[in-house]
Amino acid sequence: SSDETSNLASFSSSLLPAFGTNIVDDAYLNRRKYVIAPFDRRYRLWQTSLVALVVYSAWASPFELAFRKGATGWLMPVDLIVDAFFAIDIILTFFVAYLDNSTYLLIDDHKKIAIRYLKKLHLPMDVAATLPFQQIYQILTGKTYENDVFGILNMLRLWRLRHVSQLFSRLEKDIRISYSATRFCKLTCVTLFAVHFAGCMYYWLAAHYDVPGKTWIGKEMADFKDRSIWLGYTYSMYWSIVTLTTVGYGDLHAENTREKIFTIFYMLFNIGLTAYIIGNITNLVVHSTVRTFAMRDAINQILKYASKNRLPEGLKEQMLAQMQLKFKTAELRQEKVLQDLPKAIRSSIAQHLFRNIVENAYLFEGVSADFITQLVSEMKAEYYSPKVDIILQNEMPSYFYILVSGAVDVLNDKNGTEQVRWNPKVFSSKLLLKLESGGMAGDIGVMFNIPQPFTVRCRKLSQVIQISHDHFKQMVETYSDDGKVIITNFIQHL
Amino acid sequence: SSDETSNLASFSSSLLPAFGTNIVDDAYLNRRKYVIAPFDRRYRLWQTSLVALVVYSAWASPFELAFRKGATGWLMPVDLIVDAFFAIDIILTFFVAYLDNSTYLLIDDHKKIAIRYLKKLHLPMDVAATLPFQQIYQILTGKTYENDVFGILNMLRLWRLRHVSQLFSRLEKDIRISYSATRFCKLTCVTLFAVHFAGCMYYWLAAHYDVPGKTWIGKEMADFKDRSIWLGYTYSMYWSIVTLTTVGYGDLHAENTREKIFTIFYMLFNIGLTAYIIGNITNLVVHSTVRTFAMRDAINQILKYASKNRLPEGLKEQMLAQMQLKFKTAELRQEKVLQDLPKAIRSSIAQHLFRNIVENAYLFEGVSADFITQLVSEMKAEYYSPKVDIILQNEMPSYFYILVSGAVDVLNDKNGTEQVRWNPKVFSSKLLLKLESGGMAGDIGVMFNIPQPFTVRCRKLSQVIQISHDHFKQMVETYSDDGKVIITNFIQHL
Amino acid sequence: SSDETSNLASFSSSLLPAFGTNIVDDAYLNRRKYVIAPFDRRYRLWQTSLVALVVYSAWASPFELAFRKGATGWLMPVDLIVDAFFAIDIILTFFVAYLDNSTYLLIDDHKKIAIRYLKKLHLPMDVAATLPFQQIYQILTGKTYENDVFGILNMLRLWRLRHVSQLFSRLEKDIRISYSATRFCKLTCVTLFAVHFAGCMYYWLAAHYDVPGKTWIGKEMADFKDRSIWLGYTYSMYWSIVTLTTVGYGDLHAENTREKIFTIFYMLFNIGLTAYIIGNITNLVVHSTVRTFAMRDAINQILKYASKNRLPEGLKEQMLAQMQLKFKTAELRQEKVLQDLPKAIRSSIAQHLFRNIVENAYLFEGVSADFITQLVSEMKAEYYSPKVDIILQNEMPSYFYILVSGAVDVLNDKNGTEQVRWNPKVFSSKLLLKLESGGMAGDIGVMFNIPQPFTVRCRKLSQVIQISHDHFKQMVETYSDDGKVIITNFIQHL
Amino acid sequence: SSDETSNLASFSSSLLPAFGTNIVDDAYLNRRKYVIAPFDRRYRLWQTSLVALVVYSAWASPFELAFRKGATGWLMPVDLIVDAFFAIDIILTFFVAYLDNSTYLLIDDHKKIAIRYLKKLHLPMDVAATLPFQQIYQILTGKTYENDVFGILNMLRLWRLRHVSQLFSRLEKDIRISYSATRFCKLTCVTLFAVHFAGCMYYWLAAHYDVPGKTWIGKEMADFKDRSIWLGYTYSMYWSIVTLTTVGYGDLHAENTREKIFTIFYMLFNIGLTAYIIGNITNLVVHSTVRTFAMRDAINQILKYASKNRLPEGLKEQMLAQMQLKFKTAELRQEKVLQDLPKAIRSSIAQHLFRNIVENAYLFEGVSADFITQLVSEMKAEYYSPKVDIILQNEMPSYFYILVSGAVDVLNDKNGTEQVRWNPKVFSSKLLLKLESGGMAGDIGVMFNIPQPFTVRCRKLSQVIQISHDHFKQMVETYSDDGKVIITNFIQHL
Repeated sequence: SSDETSNLASFSSSLLPAFGTNIVDDAYLNRRKYVIAPFDRRYRLWQTSLVALVVYSAWASPFELAFRKGATGWLMPVDLIVDAFFAIDIILTFFVAYLDNSTYLLIDDHKKIAIRYLKKLHLPMDVAATLPFQQIYQILTGKTYENDVFGILNMLRLWRLRHVSQLFSRLEKDIRISYSATRFCKLTCVTLFAVHFAGCMYYWLAAHYDVPGKTWIGKEMADFKDRSIWLGYTYSMYWSIVTLTTVGYGDLHAENTREKIFTIFYMLFNIGLTAYIIGNITNLVVHSTVRTFAMRDAINQILKYASKNRLPEGLKEQMLAQMQLKFKTAELRQEKVLQDLPKAIRSSIAQHLFRNIVENAYLFEGVSADFITQLVSEMKAEYYSPKVDIILQNEMPSYFYILVSGAVDVLNDKNGTEQVRWNPKVFSSKLLLKLESGGMAGDIGVMFNIPQPFTVRCRKLSQVIQISHDHFKQMVETYSDDGKVIITNFIQHL
Repeated sequence: SSDETSNLASFSSSLLPAFGTNIVDDAYLNRRKYVIAPFDRRYRLWQTSLVALVVYSAWASPFELAFRKGATGWLMPVDLIVDAFFAIDIILTFFVAYLDNSTYLLIDDHKKIAIRYLKKLHLPMDVAATLPFQQIYQILTGKTYENDVFGILNMLRLWRLRHVSQLFSRLEKDIRISYSATRFCKLTCVTLFAVHFAGCMYYWLAAHYDVPGKTWIGKEMADFKDRSIWLGYTYSMYWSIVTLTTVGYGDLHAENTREKIFTIFYMLFNIGLTAYIIGNITNLVVHSTVRTFAMRDAINQILKYASKNRLPEGLKEQMLAQMQLKFKTAELRQEKVLQDLPKAIRSSIAQHLFRNIVENAYLFEGVSADFITQLVSEMKAEYYSPKVDIILQNEMPSYFYILVSGAVDVLNDKNGTEQVRWNPKVFSSKLLLKLESGGMAGDIGVMFNIPQPFTVRCRKLSQVIQISHDHFKQMVETYSDDGKVIITNFIQHL
Repeated sequence: SSDETSNLASFSSSLLPAFGTNIVDDAYLNRRKYVIAPFDRRYRLWQTSLVALVVYSAWASPFELAFRKGATGWLMPVDLIVDAFFAIDIILTFFVAYLDNSTYLLIDDHKKIAIRYLKKLHLPMDVAATLPFQQIYQILTGKTYENDVFGILNMLRLWRLRHVSQLFSRLEKDIRISYSATRFCKLTCVTLFAVHFAGCMYYWLAAHYDVPGKTWIGKEMADFKDRSIWLGYTYSMYWSIVTLTTVGYGDLHAENTREKIFTIFYMLFNIGLTAYIIGNITNLVVHSTVRTFAMRDAINQILKYASKNRLPEGLKEQMLAQMQLKFKTAELRQEKVLQDLPKAIRSSIAQHLFRNIVENAYLFEGVSADFITQLVSEMKAEYYSPKVDIILQNEMPSYFYILVSGAVDVLNDKNGTEQVRWNPKVFSSKLLLKLESGGMAGDIGVMFNIPQPFTVRCRKLSQVIQISHDHFKQMVETYSDDGKVIITNFIQHL
Repeated sequence: SSDETSNLASFSSSLLPAFGTNIVDDAYLNRRKYVIAPFDRRYRLWQTSLVALVVYSAWASPFELAFRKGATGWLMPVDLIVDAFFAIDIILTFFVAYLDNSTYLLIDDHKKIAIRYLKKLHLPMDVAATLPFQQIYQILTGKTYENDVFGILNMLRLWRLRHVSQLFSRLEKDIRISYSATRFCKLTCVTLFAVHFAGCMYYWLAAHYDVPGKTWIGKEMADFKDRSIWLGYTYSMYWSIVTLTTVGYGDLHAENTREKIFTIFYMLFNIGLTAYIIGNITNLVVHSTVRTFAMRDAINQILKYASKNRLPEGLKEQMLAQMQLKFKTAELRQEKVLQDLPKAIRSSIAQHLFRNIVENAYLFEGVSADFITQLVSEMKAEYYSPKVDIILQNEMPSYFYILVSGAVDVLNDKNGTEQVRWNPKVFSSKLLLKLESGGMAGDIGVMFNIPQPFTVRCRKLSQVIQISHDHFKQMVETYSDDGKVIITNFIQHL
């Protein structure tokens, strides 16, 4: 079942039909024979494994063009095997249903699938990117043609890179994988491919220039064509990356017009790539600090408010501690996100979290299950830090509280004037009671509907459930039997 | 009519007059003869086509200054034709109405138009940018004056670039064109122009320096003045872009004081340009990921909430599936955007989407059209993923539901305690009924105004319409006849 | 009075005392004699004009250190005059009241002002930055001491730069000046100062190195000390900026260890400066596109919603046109900002905008001024684009409308079913009435409290005032006399 | 107590247990003997002081590898002392409780702590990073082995850098330290370490290349191995930073393949680092300007609204002044942040700020303390700028006001029509009364429940408390005795 959930996660949003269209499930469930759904897990796996081959192609195509010695060596059989895999993929594509963009329905008609594959020009491009032209020519003519034509035709294989871009856009939506990691990986891939491609182009330009000494590499090393592929590749990559990063030492630089023109375009491209990398990293940095900034800003505002309004030190500390607690318990409450869930789920959560506690509270002993179910579904949990007041003496009761953990003091402020209260020397409140977990606070005010007779203050970090006075009153009116039980409980407890 | 809409899209917001000004339409409809509205489609087309000529001017002006050989060749007749077009535009401007900035009225008085054109100094600049000074001098004196004066005067044509900037600011507001593409294109244009302009300036500086060997290009190629324009242009562009991108190989560099000073200013400008490019790309990247981040954050918060509060696995999966569904159906609901539309449009949408479904529900058979119209206008569609509860047994009914597609189970939880429910082994709920499309759920609770007697749980992805209990009650009170029909329907169905 | 407003604009927020402190105005009005308020306009002007001198100091101090020839020439008298001005500023500071950070009161006690000036170490720094040490030494000893000591002491004048930073932080809060321009200017100043300072340091390092040929400039031009100041300054600035922008041609580079170390620190600083510039520009770009993105996103969401839910073309166009209108009229409504203003101001605005129109509406002829005042204060203006419905037939009346400008049709949909309505061929609604400016729509539904009998649709762009049904009912109950007048008006009009 | 608060601030949010878990405090209070809490202050101090040693290690490890002469000199004893400290830390770790990630409980079982330390592979890494391999080898074999093996093994000490990363992530959450400073410091540290590490690697590569002349440093200075460590280090750092900042003068550059490959990887890393620095600075800049932008946007919107709707100049100034005041008093109100605090704290603040003022108002003389407590808890303070109307004549009273500071005029608009009011020449309102601090405005309208008979306008900047009409009415109904006192007070005052 966890599998289903995560599989659902990778559906494209477009799979949802318009309102009132009643076909979605049927199309999904009763596909024709020999038709694969685009979100079939095995097909996904095949696609993902193809990506490894695409990476090889992306590396090999420019490399083989630039270093022809390499292309005729051990790389050739690997190329043929890779081509075979992509040939299979072309055939497979005819059997994969697709999603119509205007009706948002899954189309599984073979004819339509084939027509669409042809129309979007993907088929001819895929075929051209798969045919091993050189081998075909060799078989047909019996000659090995020593020219760049086949190398350039091989570049068609870069068309396969669209598989990689599809993979990344899927990964970015997959919640099981870190978004930052995906983006970072994507940027690295793009950068490395750009460097590799430009490096190979540079070598190719140099190898085909008439005067070897008038090329970027030939000036440093006149016999570069006779040196090892490894050396040439290192030089190419080195210059390519020196240019990309705009370091530009100048030990290697464009010597002839051809190289200058290629460098111009490469540098123009690099401006965009650099800006794209910076933009992405900035985005990730900004997103990662949103929560920290929110917390710091709130605390700072509290501090400024307290100091500008010259609030007493004790009050300021209450405010500060409570605000910090709010951010620490944010993950435990998530009120905003929960609001987006359907009411039934929110009720289920409340039942799971609060039911036991409410059933064990003295006030609700012997009350019907229905009453508790409905009382619980509107409850909210709150956290209070030590020394913070939960209830102030004399305020009108709007909530009463069940203590889940922690401990609170019930106090009686003799002379309740503000000035006295915050003066630690004249602190005159009298401790009446200590409450531990399971105790209730504010119940007297709510039951008698009078101003709260006591101040309730936390001794240590406390979790409480808060019950709205209004909701409670309304409930008691509806369930009059339970109301009587509650009043009996309350009187016995007094 | 779709035309009108898109034409409306390109109105400037300033065309709207102040509140109470009653002139807007009249000014628009009854313009004087021989006055063109600034948003006339043909005038827009003319303006857009001028932009192509502006691009040519922007390229040609610096080029002709630097490479005087080119200027005297085939470029000259092209210049004259382009100038002719801009001369026509100057004349046209006298016939185009404008918008007064203080009254926000369209002014179509020829005299006022002319005065404004003169006052804003656009006329003299336009004229100066259009006159072919060299040809006029040649005709007047009969001599071809071989000096840079005319080349520098030609630079006045860069004044025409304001047409391009106007085009881009219009394109950015046009919803038919991708904003990213517009911005990207704009940045490319600015960069290319900066490179081209600086490159030409570099060549011009070199060509006018007394000692050719002490110039950036002359040091590498002493006879550069006798070489082809093409070669010189490539060198200029190469150095210009090497400097702009801050690669700075050093194979070419400022040799004399004049070049050093120009380079100083060019590099200062480049800091700003680079920052502007990065800022724009960052902005596009940030904007493009807002939705993905919102989705990922919500899912992560749900996961953390569930794991920190140790919610049962089944509940966690419900939450997750429902949250994902919410994001997938976001495009189908768009509640925030719809709220900004007038009530009549929202009602029309609701009628279009829900009327048929409500009319076919058993409860509303034979009910008056008025009743349905008003019931429908307050409805909302909801999507539920499989295994999610729509209604919980024993909760007070606040909504009832019509099933549009999908399927739900109506269940009776025998021992409804929470602990039992999430324990798969003791799962004791009894299946009472399956509902298919068109069925209603929660109707019993609402009609009898009692806690919901059954739990309703989705079997597959379901679309439901939710009807508010309060709104329904109120409606039935108003339309008592329809109320009776509904009660009859309900009783028959029981 | 507009002056007062803008003067108020430049108050620092800290001038507001804590709640309940009753001293603010008195402190402001009855300052002691010979004490200047820090926000006094003349003092502000003096401070601003000092900034020009600060800019000179910032340029001259490093320049004089590097190019001692310059310092002994015409720059010396200018320096002395500038120093005199700053000496006056020091004396003035003793007479300027300041704001206490803990009490937020304006302190105008001379003794306290002096103590604070001393304590914050501003006084000794200011004095040290003002004394012309070289001249004092010359007067005291009678010798001109040819050493860098005085040049380095002169660098103390850079302390004056804090005036510039104060100016910029004030300008950024001043609404009369564009924020982008201020920031751009600030970044340019910082960059130019960094380049200038580093350039001068480079020259100073070279001029004091034992082996002139082993310095960055000496390698290129061995006799650099004998060349003109202008040439040396150009070289310095050129290398400084080549390093700052990371172009790094390499034609000039650090030759000895001392230069290498300075370059290391300069480059480290440059990383930060570049990032700061990019960060600022990005911020400006992001902020400038917020509105465009909001508009484009809303339109795109509307389009997607309409197409995914397959809404009829006509409805989609209504939605689109209305959403575009909403953004165009945003400046005319600004509801969010107005909400932050006090109720009395909002009422004044409503009176100013709507009173005339309401008084001229037929329904309110002869009604008391009080009634209109109170009716108007709750009104809102709305804009509707052509073909959009203002009222739908059969919907419950929640508003009625006065047409301010534009024109609407009152229609009767014969067969009101949705399907018919959007089918242009069977479009069967019958035109009953055309309304021009001043007419009322929806009044029948509201007066009889029945579903709206007609559909009201815009012919052209219309401005309407909307009056809430509930508010109107409540008003009529309170003012029963006016209610009777309204009913009479209504019956006569029928 | 302020200590406790700040200590609380550095708790990790994960220390909070799930809802209902009753163990948090006990685990915290009754830890086993010889077990240290991870948030113990002394342990924190020890950790923080270790960071200084980590910084030394991070500098020394690469340095000793590159410059072996240095390693055998005075650095060796320092290394041994540092190792000793980290050995103590390893032992300590066995006595520090940890937080279980699944249960969120603090685990203080020695066995579990040890198992976890082993499992996460921290123990072996810590030990390997602490053992002084060279000394052990020397003691065991009696030989000093002159090879790089020990230098490379020393690099394991970089593992200690995780202490630094932990410190920074803690500092970022600490509200006592500026976030910008922390981030800035972190970026500087990362950059300096990267430069130092790469510089040492470059020197190491050069020192181990067979042909000294074919290395980056050997080409410039063939005998570099015999020169001072200081010179070599300067060169290394210089080239390293020239590459990092992408200046790339080219005076030093990779000469052989090995150096080229290292440079390739270093440059790839630099792209990421630069983007990260820019991203962070951008984030800080964006965050620092949020408030300024909010203020400027609101003011601009007010200006545009006023000018587009052609509001009279006087009204526009009222709007502007009031909006500016709103932003200046934002720190004194902070309504959004206060809403997140519990009700009891908000009541305490209101009591502290308003109680005295309300008690001294004539209307509430002799009223019971309970009444005042409850009246005060709902109050809000408002600021009004000069010339702004607090109450408009004829509007329905929704609030009445107590003047805290400033002064207001009570006016009677004879002919209250709007047009007259804003015309300064016909300004006909008659001054009835001036109110100073402590006075009440709007009380007549509220007491008689009639439209306000007077306009109340500020003379100077005024602070008022606003009391809701509805809340007041409700209060008077509940406390009928106090109601009578209030009516008596009111009548006497008339």
